[in-house]
Amino acid sequence: MRPLSLIGLGRICFAQCTALRCKSVVAGVNASAQQQPQQPKNRFTNKQKLFLSQFLKNMASPEIEAILAPLRADVKEYGDLIRKLKDENAPKVDVDRAVVELKARKRKLEEKEIALAPKETSIDRMKLEDLLKRRFFYDQSFAIYGGVTGLYDFGPMGCATKSNMLQVWRNHFVLEEGMLEVECAMLTPEAVLKASGHVERFADFMVKDEKTGECFRADHLIKLHAEKLLDEKKTPESTKKELTDVLAQIDGFSQSDMGDTIRKFGFKSPITGNELTEPMAFNLMFPTQIGPTGDLKGFLRPETAQGIFVNFKRLLEFNQGRLPFAAAQIGAGFRNEISPRQGLIRVREFTMCEIEHFVDPEDKDHPKFDRVRDYELTLFSACNQMDGKPTEKMTIGKAVDQGIVANQTLGYYIVRVHQFLIKVGVERSKLRFRQHLGNEMAHYAKDCWDAECLTSYGWIECVGNADRACYDLEQHYKATGVKLAAEKVLKEPKTVDVIEAVPNKAAIGKSLKKEGKPLIAYLESLSISGVDSLEKELKDKGKAAIPIEGKQVDLLPEMVEIKRCQKQVHVEEIVPSVIEPSFGIGRIMYAVLEHSFRMREGDEQRTYLALPALIAPIKCSVLPLSNNPDFAPIVRMVTEELRDADLSHKVDDSSGSIGRRYARTDEIGIPFGVTVDFDSLKEPHTVTLRHAVSMEQVRLPINEVGQTVKNMVTNRCSWADVLNKYPKFEQQEASAK
Amino acid sequence: MRPLSLIGLGRICFAQCTALRCKSVVAGVNASAQQQPQQPKNRFTNKQKLFLSQFLKNMASPEIEAILAPLRADVKEYGDLIRKLKDENAPKVDVDRAVVELKARKRKLEEKEIALAPKETSIDRMKLEDLLKRRFFYDQSFAIYGGVTGLYDFGPMGCATKSNMLQVWRNHFVLEEGMLEVECAMLTPEAVLKASGHVERFADFMVKDEKTGECFRADHLIKLHAEKLLDEKKTPESTKKELTDVLAQIDGFSQSDMGDTIRKFGFKSPITGNELTEPMAFNLMFPTQIGPTGDLKGFLRPETAQGIFVNFKRLLEFNQGRLPFAAAQIGAGFRNEISPRQGLIRVREFTMCEIEHFVDPEDKDHPKFDRVRDYELTLFSACNQMDGKPTEKMTIGKAVDQGIVANQTLGYYIVRVHQFLIKVGVERSKLRFRQHLGNEMAHYAKDCWDAECLTSYGWIECVGNADRACYDLEQHYKATGVKLAAEKVLKEPKTVDVIEAVPNKAAIGKSLKKEGKPLIAYLESLSISGVDSLEKELKDKGKAAIPIEGKQVDLLPEMVEIKRCQKQVHVEEIVPSVIEPSFGIGRIMYAVLEHSFRMREGDEQRTYLALPALIAPIKCSVLPLSNNPDFAPIVRMVTEELRDADLSHKVDDSSGSIGRRYARTDEIGIPFGVTVDFDSLKEPHTVTLRHAVSMEQVRLPINEVGQTVKNMVTNRCSWADVLNKYPKFEQQEASAK
Repeated sequence: MRPLSLIGLGRICFAQCTALRCKSVVAGVNASAQQQPQQPKNRFTNKQKLFLSQFLKNMASPEIEAILAPLRADVKEYGDLIRKLKDENAPKVDVDRAVVELKARKRKLEEKEIALAPKETSIDRMKLEDLLKRRFFYDQSFAIYGGVTGLYDFGPMGCATKSNMLQVWRNHFVLEEGMLEVECAMLTPEAVLKASGHVERFADFMVKDEKTGECFRADHLIKLHAEKLLDEKKTPESTKKELTDVLAQIDGFSQSDMGDTIRKFGFKSPITGNELTEPMAFNLMFPTQIGPTGDLKGFLRPETAQGIFVNFKRLLEFNQGRLPFAAAQIGAGFRNEISPRQGLIRVREFTMCEIEHFVDPEDKDHPKFDRVRDYELTLFSACNQMDGKPTEKMTIGKAVDQGIVANQTLGYYIVRVHQFLIKVGVERSKLRFRQHLGNEMAHYAKDCWDAECLTSYGWIECVGNADRACYDLEQHYKATGVKLAAEKVLKEPKTVDVIEAVPNKAAIGKSLKKEGKPLIAYLESLSISGVDSLEKELKDKGKAAIPIEGKQVDLLPEMVEIKRCQKQVHVEEIVPSVIEPSFGIGRIMYAVLEHSFRMREGDEQRTYLALPALIAPIKCSVLPLSNNPDFAPIVRMVTEELRDADLSHKVDDSSGSIGRRYARTDEIGIPFGVTVDFDSLKEPHTVTLRHAVSMEQVRLPINEVGQTVKNMVTNRCSWADVLNKYPKFEQQEASAK
Repeated sequence: MRPLSLIGLGRICFAQCTALRCKSVVAGVNASAQQQPQQPKNRFTNKQKLFLSQFLKNMASPEIEAILAPLRADVKEYGDLIRKLKDENAPKVDVDRAVVELKARKRKLEEKEIALAPKETSIDRMKLEDLLKRRFFYDQSFAIYGGVTGLYDFGPMGCATKSNMLQVWRNHFVLEEGMLEVECAMLTPEAVLKASGHVERFADFMVKDEKTGECFRADHLIKLHAEKLLDEKKTPESTKKELTDVLAQIDGFSQSDMGDTIRKFGFKSPITGNELTEPMAFNLMFPTQIGPTGDLKGFLRPETAQGIFVNFKRLLEFNQGRLPFAAAQIGAGFRNEISPRQGLIRVREFTMCEIEHFVDPEDKDHPKFDRVRDYELTLFSACNQMDGKPTEKMTIGKAVDQGIVANQTLGYYIVRVHQFLIKVGVERSKLRFRQHLGNEMAHYAKDCWDAECLTSYGWIECVGNADRACYDLEQHYKATGVKLAAEKVLKEPKTVDVIEAVPNKAAIGKSLKKEGKPLIAYLESLSISGVDSLEKELKDKGKAAIPIEGKQVDLLPEMVEIKRCQKQVHVEEIVPSVIEPSFGIGRIMYAVLEHSFRMREGDEQRTYLALPALIAPIKCSVLPLSNNPDFAPIVRMVTEELRDADLSHKVDDSSGSIGRRYARTDEIGIPFGVTVDFDSLKEPHTVTLRHAVSMEQVRLPINEVGQTVKNMVTNRCSWADVLNKYPKFEQQEASAK
């Protein structure tokens, strides 16, 4: 489950939106059949044209570091202050204020870092989006009805890419780690989400136009107005300074901070100029009713994790009662965003993969940790963030040994997540693990590291990795009275003092009738301290008030016997801790698409996707040189060869030039291409095999095509190996232009 | 989309429920943590203990046919009557009445057929359900909160079985047939489902307790009362006869028929004895709001098909404008059942696979039809149903040639569906394709064949295969004004009369302002007959009333010019027909589980699942004979061998006897098992390989285990081949008992 913090609350909610109008956006249905979604505001403008990997390489240069140094010092100043305040046990409000300022300074530092990137080359997001739309990777849902923002349909290429990615995920985690995969209901009754905290706290703040009722997300509205005022010459410098502070601090704003800001600057509806209401919390879950009477209120689940927690007992039993074990789930989550933007980054319906690893809270070592101990990754620790320092490359062994990462199990998953992201195509230099600062986490969480990918929207959270302690299981226990615990065999038996509140069932049944049953359950579930205070209350007042189903029931002394004794026990009952990696598949997919987007040198129009073969929607194209009918039987031989190797493939026998047809297959990320040419007609039949990224080709016998491509797709051999094995073919690509 | 008939309307709604209480069932949350779902009423009682495949073999015996003959004649009488009425163009009401009686007689025949089955062997559904629950294939969702009926969670075994089944589906249809797979949003705005007809007609009838508001499904309530009265001795014979007719006819009852019946017999609430309200239609879609204002009403989709239809233009373009092509989708559908029952057969949230094959309405031949022409399957044609005749084995070639199946494309899909169902484990003798009778189909449908599986709940519809003509695309065109059509190249160009209503945009804009735009669109979209009648109206009345967004707008003669000319055209625009196979994955999975459920001869307690290896959740178990530490390295060699072959496997090194451990793996359908014994320690290392169904074993070298199992899982070789190749091993299974 995601940490429920002040606002936003989202496990998958790092990236900021700049969009504002909700009503017009949301109620887009029927407005216009051809309406296009507004272009989301780009954090890096097109003019800047950043080439981010280049930029990251330059990051360490002394010139740039000199510029960043004062900003780093500003951050450190507040990092130190917070540490000092905490050491002195300063009031929480003071710490919170300092944290807001710290975050503001961190953001200024990060924006400077990004602004310093060289501008000559770029990720041209417009071009990428054009490609994704044109070749139907994904596009807005219900477009012929005007479209609904925040909902996307995946076309054939997007759907295949996504399903390949999920298959890699399943192999990498469920199969290789022996996890228990489950698939739970999406419709979830209110009681479950009350226990998890979502009914109360899964919300964003919004304000309404007082006259029209139009809704705006409060933080987005403040940002829009503040940015506009900052751009205006007539705005006094003092106001500009205040607004800059507002922008820096807005992510930490409370409901009243937002209200104060709107009142102070007199912000109005940007559409009508009308007054706005006070900010109010808007729950982000989609409500519904289950069954015909309307009595059973439910929601579409905001995450898949709760389905695993409520099945904990069954899963523990399936694992023959043993800890640790991990359960996993792939499925949809729903989030009724006030004003969704940023394409696949912030949507209303999304695919998540979640792992809940249940472990003894006192022993979070991982049996396979030694296998990954020397694995190196880029960490951005809370400490470095507070000191204004950059990320650090470090082995996970060192990070755990030094206490930077809380424990081996969390460290092991961080490595496995890193390996997965690289495998599906995230660029190593654009991937970092950022630790949550103390106040970013929920109070019960022990440690949390987000896998963040650098995209044209900035660093976006793609995978959250949290040690959530035993919070979730305990919440469901409290709500249901069903103990969600495991038995741990003690190394040696121990003698314990036992104190029990033994109900006198006859007496209870006689006086309380139907209310007796929950009372008995209550007494039997009491903890030691619970029995203690019950005993005290009975002694002091001659009775005790017990809360049963919302009412107070009087417990009289004759209804219960307080027993004390000693017992030798061989096992103890423990509520497991949960380590949770939680993946936003749409975000990962978007990052991979950005990271694999390329242009051919010297030809800006010829864009393509260098997707890893493992997740490419189609593995191989088959192109006859022309529509000469003699090629048909050879093409069939090739497709049968590919089919036998279980490789998805696409024949393009349309009339375009071979070069144009290759450009079309490059665009959709097909990594390999077979050309059937006149030499193919001679026996023994051969074809050329082309590597899309390098455009190099070799010539090989048809009956070796399937295995060769298969080996490259499954990473058993590389293109370099193939180049070594077969003669290079030079002719055709020249004719491609 | 499913045909929307009188009630029920469900594509996946053939099987009948007998359950009644809704409120208590639905509002089960928090009631009791350990509450068990009520056992659904069994159509075949446990006592009967049918062994259905045996029964089906006996079906053709002369003795049984003699008993069935009069029932068959009864059916035929009404079949003939209906044909006669239709020939005579009798009033629709008379035909409808006759159809209701025909169905009643068909049902009596089918129940007799089932009752005649031999009783000595059985599908013991209780035992199967116990196994599925105990080994967590699936179980009720949110059980610790009291459970919610109609929602199920899949545990590790169910989840793996289901995901294997979906993978087979994807290979069998999407890859082998080159379909365009998409994944569309589940949240669907109301406008889309209004166009599809779901908002108006996707409903069941319910009645409420007048005092408590408790809800009952009207047909279930009537059935319950009628069955109870039929069981009572004091009920007069004349009433019994009437009630028998009610039971036979209830599936065809209209809203008023149900109300009449409840009033006539004085049926009351079975819980309180209170009066009941008149039946009312209850829409089965789950409602929600999209966005914060509540303005955009939406539903959870009741089927995945609409997502494909609204993407038709993008898909056609993806297919470079060419017909035919097929799109496919795997995803969740939702249905707010009034009182769900029968386990996975009738649930509120389910996985569907749907294919929409778009084809020229005038040419529904299929290019691959000749490949399947001689494929034989069991068909239950409308004609045979009306004649009281049994199913017939027939090749699809004959069925299409004789016009029994409407066209080649539908016929091709029927075969492909049959092949898929057999592949995933449906028993051939328990599978039939039943044609819809004329009045079962929606008015626009051309032909419809349900793949039905025989289970302990009776024949249940698992896959619907319908020729839906061009209904769906036209509905969305009407609702949005976006033409959903394809261009067809004519064999030779033809000259056509063209008549157009050319809007005078200036005149329209001047007098109508903002209403002008939809009026112009309306004029441009008019069909030839539309222009004709517009011209007539203008001539007769001097103006024409045009419906624009719910209002009438006056069109004056100067606003439009009616143009007539001749044109030579090379293409024509056609709205494609849709052939739609629609799969209920939960139902198929349940049928497969029943069909593969077995007991070891002579040991009723030792039940197991003979799942096809292709969909078995785990392909191979690895069992060391004892916990002797010498076995550990050999076990590791075996697991690495299996991992290299990408085979899911499970090591069971617990302390039970080898026989008991095998029984546990047999229960969850693991088809193959490797035993590591003392002979395995000798070089060259060998192990035994066991075939779960036959319990036979062979001995083979460890480095051949992976490929051998892989070949059997992928049907490249059979157990018989393995028996031929390796020496049989006789020792251990004896010790299993």
